[in-house]
Amino acid sequence: MTVTIAELAAALSAEAAGNVELAVARPAPPDSAGPDDIVVAMLPKYARKLADCRARAAILWPGADYAALGFEAAIFPERPRLAMAGLTAAFDAGPDIPLGIHPLSDVAADAVLGAAVAIGPFVSIGPGARIGDGARLLGHVSIGAGAEIGDEALIHPGVRIGARVRIGRRAIIHANAVIGADGFSFVTAERGAVEQARESGRLDTETRTDRYLRIASLGSVAIGDDVEIGAGSCIDRGTIADTVIGSGTKIDNLVQIGHNVVIGSTCLICGHVGIAGSAEIGERVVLGGKVGVSDHIRIGSDVVVAGGSLVGANVPSGSVMMGVPALRKDKAAELLLLGRRLPSLFADVETLKKRVSNSSGSG
Amino acid sequence: MTVTIAELAAALSAEAAGNVELAVARPAPPDSAGPDDIVVAMLPKYARKLADCRARAAILWPGADYAALGFEAAIFPERPRLAMAGLTAAFDAGPDIPLGIHPLSDVAADAVLGAAVAIGPFVSIGPGARIGDGARLLGHVSIGAGAEIGDEALIHPGVRIGARVRIGRRAIIHANAVIGADGFSFVTAERGAVEQARESGRLDTETRTDRYLRIASLGSVAIGDDVEIGAGSCIDRGTIADTVIGSGTKIDNLVQIGHNVVIGSTCLICGHVGIAGSAEIGERVVLGGKVGVSDHIRIGSDVVVAGGSLVGANVPSGSVMMGVPALRKDKAAELLLLGRRLPSLFADVETLKKRVSNSSGSG
Amino acid sequence: MTVTIAELAAALSAEAAGNVELAVARPAPPDSAGPDDIVVAMLPKYARKLADCRARAAILWPGADYAALGFEAAIFPERPRLAMAGLTAAFDAGPDIPLGIHPLSDVAADAVLGAAVAIGPFVSIGPGARIGDGARLLGHVSIGAGAEIGDEALIHPGVRIGARVRIGRRAIIHANAVIGADGFSFVTAERGAVEQARESGRLDTETRTDRYLRIASLGSVAIGDDVEIGAGSCIDRGTIADTVIGSGTKIDNLVQIGHNVVIGSTCLICGHVGIAGSAEIGERVVLGGKVGVSDHIRIGSDVVVAGGSLVGANVPSGSVMMGVPALRKDKAAELLLLGRRLPSLFADVETLKKRVSNSSGSG
Repeated sequence: MTVTIAELAAALSAEAAGNVELAVARPAPPDSAGPDDIVVAMLPKYARKLADCRARAAILWPGADYAALGFEAAIFPERPRLAMAGLTAAFDAGPDIPLGIHPLSDVAADAVLGAAVAIGPFVSIGPGARIGDGARLLGHVSIGAGAEIGDEALIHPGVRIGARVRIGRRAIIHANAVIGADGFSFVTAERGAVEQARESGRLDTETRTDRYLRIASLGSVAIGDDVEIGAGSCIDRGTIADTVIGSGTKIDNLVQIGHNVVIGSTCLICGHVGIAGSAEIGERVVLGGKVGVSDHIRIGSDVVVAGGSLVGANVPSGSVMMGVPALRKDKAAELLLLGRRLPSLFADVETLKKRVSNSSGSG
Repeated sequence: MTVTIAELAAALSAEAAGNVELAVARPAPPDSAGPDDIVVAMLPKYARKLADCRARAAILWPGADYAALGFEAAIFPERPRLAMAGLTAAFDAGPDIPLGIHPLSDVAADAVLGAAVAIGPFVSIGPGARIGDGARLLGHVSIGAGAEIGDEALIHPGVRIGARVRIGRRAIIHANAVIGADGFSFVTAERGAVEQARESGRLDTETRTDRYLRIASLGSVAIGDDVEIGAGSCIDRGTIADTVIGSGTKIDNLVQIGHNVVIGSTCLICGHVGIAGSAEIGERVVLGGKVGVSDHIRIGSDVVVAGGSLVGANVPSGSVMMGVPALRKDKAAELLLLGRRLPSLFADVETLKKRVSNSSGSG
Repeated sequence: MTVTIAELAAALSAEAAGNVELAVARPAPPDSAGPDDIVVAMLPKYARKLADCRARAAILWPGADYAALGFEAAIFPERPRLAMAGLTAAFDAGPDIPLGIHPLSDVAADAVLGAAVAIGPFVSIGPGARIGDGARLLGHVSIGAGAEIGDEALIHPGVRIGARVRIGRRAIIHANAVIGADGFSFVTAERGAVEQARESGRLDTETRTDRYLRIASLGSVAIGDDVEIGAGSCIDRGTIADTVIGSGTKIDNLVQIGHNVVIGSTCLICGHVGIAGSAEIGERVVLGGKVGVSDHIRIGSDVVVAGGSLVGANVPSGSVMMGVPALRKDKAAELLLLGRRLPSLFADVETLKKRVSNSSGSG
């Protein structure tokens, strides 16, 4: 598979120069690019890395002198990250899986498979499940009874989709993710320590819990269109309503999303984020890596939470949050800076104590 | 499957009123309940959500005027969360898996299967393993050589049970959990930086580690009765003794439990908790989401640790802990509040410095 | 399988005493050791636990009076942790998997399998993949197209290896790990809030993101020799270059390693660590449990980061870091101690305010 510089420039809506009929096989970084590659160096600071580059074509910053840098042709995108989307899409062959149903799979007789599906080896599809047109299940996938997978979805190996889970069109679910396990929801026959704390605001550890009763998860998980879910991530089913993930939301690896959580559309949820049960998150929210959100918290829309923060109180729309516990970012940054000045503050107070003591003594 | 209001009220030990012979198909939240559902609204604040509700039956707060709210029948439980346990249990059909051994499974000739087991597709059961009466292995499960699964256990798809692991009765293990991987335990031939730090309390990074030797895991994992383990969670085997999880303990998703850890009975371990090697945790302990426990730490019984805390020192029984690093909750809360008042403290000290300087200068 | 005391002492390069021809079946802790076991008690503080021990042989601290403690034979290693490596290796039988290819597996016709491989049940090996001599794939493993697995590698059940991933010799990959999922990399067609923050240092939430474009992952993952990767851990593939894990590096469970990350050799990465995209980590680095590393950060060599820390800025070689955000450990420890003295500081300032106010008032 090769692409010409002219084709690639058109795909990136970017200007090209030089021998635009040159065909390239793949993008590559400066240190490993070969003569068939197009080297990617979209910032001037990478110029000196290009000295010994063997590639004949390059993707460079606007205004770069490609000929002086030794290239036969070049493309000059305006926005590097946006160009990376077009560039990688142009060369992404996607997974290699033949259409049809692998003989070593187990598809329930009443499962409904769409047109042009690809079902890999060791895939299990339960009774009444529906697989959309063009959906691809790469191998070792479990689809529970009555689950629905949207058209053109791509399900990577080892993914577990529980019963009645609904996943929209063009979803990409990465390896070993689990959608639709039971929620983590227990109650004690007598009022327990945690339950009292929840109701009274105080924790009373004198209340001994001898046994937990299980609250079963009758709800399911409803996932919109164009959602991506990372490897090993877990989204639990709801108790009586569904756990909901809005369209266009992207979830990274090893993320935990508890029962009854509702996440709006077009959010970015980074790796190791944990969202506890019944939290509600608006639209266009970005949660940095390892963010924790407590149960029943409401986060508005257009919120950004810095990585590692713990959100333990409701957050209004438009907020930028940071810290443990999370505060508005400007407040958190101020406190952080003051905290680092504690040594001089303690010293100042010691000096003041001596001087006041002296002046009193001499008064 | 339908249940009458009378049956449901009996199951919840709650009072009922109205047409108690009315049969309902499932519980539902106010905004999606249909005419066959029983709507769940156990707090007065949900009353206005019931205005357009199409359900004919409801589970309401004690004293609610069901008829005025438009229902034919209602149940009035005293404790909402406890009622949720009974309610969801009444409608939980459980996973749909036929008894017997799926033809696309691989069961060792000398494995011992109990009565009425259900072994799903693509399940692998190793030599000498024992599966208890009524146990269900839903699909894609691996059971290592010599492992023992208790009666009535429910093992969801993709779970990996290592060799010689023992799991008690009625365990529920959610999808893609891993019980019995090797512990993370290495040593350098020469004394390494971390080992010196462990012994001397100081870290010495001048000690270069060229190679790690592996400490193998000869122990196993012993899990009591009525334990639930969440999706994607990992419990490593012990070095020479077993890693132990006490009966009735519930573990959420993506939890990491290191080698040699001993956890007592009836604990709640929330999502993303990490417990490092050889830590010991008592009974009835609650660890909130994302709590970290350092290696070799001892936590007593009846302890509650708030979400996001890092426990780096032993914790006596009956403690409530919070923070990074975790302190007693009242102390942690006091420090947190004072920390937020740092701006005024810095301002006060600046004022004092000027006044003392002036008074000295004028003295 | 039994080992004599003489053989074991030679394997540990340690002195032995007593009946060194005594054969032992396995090591055991004091409370559960039987007559065929060798009890492990390498520190004098364990002496009283040996009172009722039924074992006839022991591994004791140097100088211990084994006969007085009731043993027929004993070994006296100098370094307990190092002895554990030799001891557990001597008794580690490893997984029980027959050589050859299980009939319930799916191996592409053009995959290249080395000599003496063991391919377990429900293993899928894609087109063009290469499996090294003596490699063992225990069951339920996916190997993507063109992937390469080194000689003597041990791949536990449920591991997912993506297309073109390269794994070195003697690697140990634990159950349900995912190597080579796509990176988490998105861009908005218009400049989005996060991108602006990245470029300007400020977050502007007025920029509404309506849709994310995907940056595909054309790179792969390159893993050196003697690497161990824990259960459930995820290592994403690079964008155009590879994500790289150096030889001898050991990674614990549920670790997340983002796209384009480069980790040097002989590092220890503990449980729940998250390393965001394009971070670079040197050699012999130790990251404690739950450490987070922000994207594009550079950490030098011979660095130790305490558990739970968040690394948000570059770290020079030889540093010991701690805290949220991580600071040099001595600085972080000083600030932590001062933070705990805030109550007395606030009290001191109140006292000073009153005294200065009084002295001004009386002046």
